Amino acid sequence: MFRKILIANRGEIAMRIIRGCRELNIATAAIYSEADSSGIYVKKADESYLVGPGPVKGFLDGKQIVEIAKRIGADAIHPGYGFLSENTKFARLCQTSGITFIGPSPETIDLMGSKVKARQIAQQAGVPIVPGTEGGVTSVDDALAFAHQINYPVMIKASAGGGGRGLRVVRSDQELRENIDVASREAQAAFGDGSIFIEKYIERPHHIEFQILGDKHGNIIHLGERDCSIQRRHQKLIEIAPSLILTPKLRAQMGEAAIAIAKAVHYDNAGTVEFLLDHEGHFYFMEMNPRLQVEHTVTEQITAIDIVRNQISIAAGKPLEIRQKDVTLQGHAIQCRINAEDPRNNFMPCTGTITAYLSPGGIGVRIDGAVYRDYTIPPYYDALLAKLTVRGRTWEETVSRMRRSLEEYVLRGVKTTIPFMKNVMMEQDFQAGRFDTSYLETHPDLYQYEESEEPEDLVLAISAAIAAYEGL
Amino acid sequence: MFRKILIANRGEIAMRIIRGCRELNIATAAIYSEADSSGIYVKKADESYLVGPGPVKGFLDGKQIVEIAKRIGADAIHPGYGFLSENTKFARLCQTSGITFIGPSPETIDLMGSKVKARQIAQQAGVPIVPGTEGGVTSVDDALAFAHQINYPVMIKASAGGGGRGLRVVRSDQELRENIDVASREAQAAFGDGSIFIEKYIERPHHIEFQILGDKHGNIIHLGERDCSIQRRHQKLIEIAPSLILTPKLRAQMGEAAIAIAKAVHYDNAGTVEFLLDHEGHFYFMEMNPRLQVEHTVTEQITAIDIVRNQISIAAGKPLEIRQKDVTLQGHAIQCRINAEDPRNNFMPCTGTITAYLSPGGIGVRIDGAVYRDYTIPPYYDALLAKLTVRGRTWEETVSRMRRSLEEYVLRGVKTTIPFMKNVMMEQDFQAGRFDTSYLETHPDLYQYEESEEPEDLVLAISAAIAAYEGL
Repeated sequence: MFRKILIANRGEIAMRIIRGCRELNIATAAIYSEADSSGIYVKKADESYLVGPGPVKGFLDGKQIVEIAKRIGADAIHPGYGFLSENTKFARLCQTSGITFIGPSPETIDLMGSKVKARQIAQQAGVPIVPGTEGGVTSVDDALAFAHQINYPVMIKASAGGGGRGLRVVRSDQELRENIDVASREAQAAFGDGSIFIEKYIERPHHIEFQILGDKHGNIIHLGERDCSIQRRHQKLIEIAPSLILTPKLRAQMGEAAIAIAKAVHYDNAGTVEFLLDHEGHFYFMEMNPRLQVEHTVTEQITAIDIVRNQISIAAGKPLEIRQKDVTLQGHAIQCRINAEDPRNNFMPCTGTITAYLSPGGIGVRIDGAVYRDYTIPPYYDALLAKLTVRGRTWEETVSRMRRSLEEYVLRGVKTTIPFMKNVMMEQDFQAGRFDTSYLETHPDLYQYEESEEPEDLVLAISAAIAAYEGL
Repeated sequence: MFRKILIANRGEIAMRIIRGCRELNIATAAIYSEADSSGIYVKKADESYLVGPGPVKGFLDGKQIVEIAKRIGADAIHPGYGFLSENTKFARLCQTSGITFIGPSPETIDLMGSKVKARQIAQQAGVPIVPGTEGGVTSVDDALAFAHQINYPVMIKASAGGGGRGLRVVRSDQELRENIDVASREAQAAFGDGSIFIEKYIERPHHIEFQILGDKHGNIIHLGERDCSIQRRHQKLIEIAPSLILTPKLRAQMGEAAIAIAKAVHYDNAGTVEFLLDHEGHFYFMEMNPRLQVEHTVTEQITAIDIVRNQISIAAGKPLEIRQKDVTLQGHAIQCRINAEDPRNNFMPCTGTITAYLSPGGIGVRIDGAVYRDYTIPPYYDALLAKLTVRGRTWEETVSRMRRSLEEYVLRGVKTTIPFMKNVMMEQDFQAGRFDTSYLETHPDLYQYEESEEPEDLVLAISAAIAAYEGL
């Protein structure tokens, strides 16, 4: 087993990895920038090293990080998510420096980083992908023929486009005819390349992802799925496990598909296979994330399997201790991302100093946080302050528990997503499990709330609460 | 369902009940003394009422509490544990005042409050009890005959004794002969009654208790067992679930025995049947606790069943939603009681103001606390500040997780059991699951530790930690 792990990350995920290491009696080394030096993970790690220059570059400077690891005698690096976690060069640099990268091989990261290659792998493994033309479409007749083959609605996409530019949804032959030339001309003007693709448009899909664990001995299992449909501009906000809409049969089919893809690339370590699921129960491979996900907590809560512990043990070459038949799902879990953001102002990131902090507790509540009273949030990083994950026996109980926990959360001094999340927990469609990727767009009432105006000092707040009832 | 529940308790258990009520959308009313007015449960309840006089009497004054409940329109009272929770008169007063007492009927509390009646009920239900003479023993020959019948070691007990006075353990005919007359004379001198009993002495037993849930429709189930052997002078300190020494067969037998006793008294609501278990696998009924236990959390963690929610729903007359076959045990759980006590000074209770507070988090960690930074611990109540409960997939993982969580716990300004608990988690017999009720006596090394001397301010502590590594 490793003696010391360098954590090439910060914030809550650095805390998560420190906790995993401590439970395995492995020493930890953190890295931090000057702007991030009051992060609690800096203190909780056994050692911490300043990286720079500036607040962000040090976290992206693989060479500097590997140098530190070599100097301090770290025998492995955990990249967390973001930063260098999906960087093939960094994984390879670790390899050639004799330091274990806690993640899949550089070759696997490379394959999964290419959408085209990943689609080919899925196809070869017999897993459905969103149907699309292989190359550019050159005539209206070809486009019509393909649309008839895969049925409307379809998307017209510029080959060279990205970020939604040059993207049109059409629902009939007439709309296709009307749009295809316009789209091609626009693509030519915008990208200097007029070629276009036709792809099946999946309406209001669910985002369903399967958690995979694979070891270096060819054992691959899945830990069930997460439904991450509640997103804003492809940013996940709320994640649940298990999905409320998967039948046992569909779960088995999708689980097998996820494992088939992982097997095809000899996947080892933790990873996630993401699918789109339409309202008729058809699923399509989207991509595979070769790293730990923010939302891995909901899977841990219903399976009692520690994903970070498994990542470390797999990276050290140990065979998986868990067989597929040992994986049982107990109850339901929901994760809310507590971000320093103002949902009513377009989720604008907020900074400030936390003036009061008391996290919720009691049955079924898990907090993965990296903040404390008097902590000043630096403006350079993502807005995630803490992840609030709850589990319960039934969906209804789990939703009430999340609402109760959000009500209990004391976090003052900065605007957060807490009041917005409370509204979601009280919204009827969410409570009934009726949500897909269109949920946030179709529920504008969620943005209606007042900020709490309680005193920031808990002792004062308690005195005030008592005074208010003294007249009774 | 109830509209408003008055909580006739304080501290962490008041918080536990508030959380259960909030999840069920039931309003809560707390009671508090002047000495306890900065308790966080006072703020978290929807309403709070001062009871008195003095710090304790108000919590024991059933009449005053029922008056408040009637005045404020509370339709039920949850007594928690301690105070009035096992008081037949209080349960009856609630009944006659038209307020639901959340617990079993006054008749059941009465039966279970009498050790003699409880033993008779167990015997009639075919459950083994610790063998003992029915009445006083009048001759040495009778004593010897009984000792031969139940085998040595046996205890000689004064009929009128209590608290261990006049209690002798003997292991042979000779020791029995030598001690019986002395014991009788001592009992005569001490209690004015020389009659003595002979009872089987169970050496270094395990304390095993089964959690029962029964409804008002005759359904009774058990949620598995807890091992509460780690006690100091019959005060539980650490509790685990499930037991590490029960075979599935013994679990089934003891579970059936617990249900048989509960059925014999038409038990409804949550309760606990306590057994002694010897090293040969023989178990003996000890007593039944007709209330919520401090350590109910470990059962909740491995079953995902909310015991307080069930208490409320049962008291409201609803049938149990869970069948025995639905109860599954997932993994292991440990609870450590974080008390304001100094273990190295005979567990002397400590008071003071909490100067820094940050509870542990992450995977598998549950906190049931009632304290916060700047809270001053009143000297009038029990020393329990918080319950730290962790769960894990295996016993080894659960023990490491508890150690890690104790290391992570920041609670400054007052001495606590945290460093002592850390020592237990690092002790080899505990790690190997080798512990019974003699554990604390036989492991004096657990009391060897240094108090942490970290700065109390987290921001300062982080700066200090960084400075310490800057030279590297």
